Amino acid sequence: MELLKEKILKKGNIVEDNIIKVDSFLNHQVDVELLNEIGKEFKKIFRDEKIDKILTAEVSGIAIAAIVAQYFHVPMVFARKTESKNLDKEIYKSEVYSYTNGITYSIRVSKRYLKEGENILVIDDFLANGRAVEGLIDIIQKAKANLVGIGVVIEKGFQLGGKKIRDKGIRLESLAIINSIKNGKIRFE
Amino acid sequence: MELLKEKILKKGNIVEDNIIKVDSFLNHQVDVELLNEIGKEFKKIFRDEKIDKILTAEVSGIAIAAIVAQYFHVPMVFARKTESKNLDKEIYKSEVYSYTNGITYSIRVSKRYLKEGENILVIDDFLANGRAVEGLIDIIQKAKANLVGIGVVIEKGFQLGGKKIRDKGIRLESLAIINSIKNGKIRFE
Repeated sequence: MELLKEKILKKGNIVEDNIIKVDSFLNHQVDVELLNEIGKEFKKIFRDEKIDKILTAEVSGIAIAAIVAQYFHVPMVFARKTESKNLDKEIYKSEVYSYTNGITYSIRVSKRYLKEGENILVIDDFLANGRAVEGLIDIIQKAKANLVGIGVVIEKGFQLGGKKIRDKGIRLESLAIINSIKNGKIRFE
Repeated sequence: MELLKEKILKKGNIVEDNIIKVDSFLNHQVDVELLNEIGKEFKKIFRDEKIDKILTAEVSGIAIAAIVAQYFHVPMVFARKTESKNLDKEIYKSEVYSYTNGITYSIRVSKRYLKEGENILVIDDFLANGRAVEGLIDIIQKAKANLVGIGVVIEKGFQLGGKKIRDKGIRLESLAIINSIKNGKIRFE
């Protein structure tokens, strides 16, 4: 997606080799006009699929998934990371290891909001090692729902997450795949 | 907002007196069509105000604020609750006590995304004791930005947050104010 790649080149903040921050438009400050274009793009990509629900995970997936869901006219569900007294007791749960922060956390979805046979599109902001997405896939399987595909805004192509998921035969669509970030230069696939 | 009140009556889950869960449409599973109506309503209410940015806090404000921001054609910023290596070092920070979970947590906004003189509309899902919103106000003041007003989806009118904020002369607009939840019955203002 050209507009997204331009945005990454213009507004992405390269911290060091292989690390880029996109918090000026994607996961802290959010450019909603760009998210709308992202929503249209995912709708175009998955236009032939029957989708009943969009699933994402706290935190940075939420804004994107909410806006994407508008184009599919379906509800969005976000897996909860934070524990809360308000969460149902009956939940599907999975563990996710975060390489960024070096900790394992749980994600949870109430059994009421993910049903057997529902067609689920997973949306997330970033795919690197793929742990967050694998946690969501695990939850979908536990619910016996049907994973239609995964839409990711930015994939780090030089990490293993994308390959692992595609090798399982899962349809993974990334709007921008970064193949390297080196000496202040970003290369896309 | 009638549509919202109907939704609360139909889909809200009364747990006990004074406690209602709206996780089937607002803060776990998200009804994006409803959020669009909420966005239009806030735009109508604040139509005469100059707004440069929408500010909310993790987690449940994000989906709402993202969709509301579309109607104002401005970026949305969400204050981060979770610590992350990816967050800037230069931040505005405030402490928030959560009555629901009995803990104090920090919220943080990068100094790059909240500037002196910017006109800020705060959006959140719930207002009860008002601690989360007070944390956001504190951050806005630290940034010397200009708080235009606060838009809340559901206010618990029987708790003190709304009164405290209005007493300070701040414009607070709630789309549904619940005055009591008793014996399985919800009364709106």
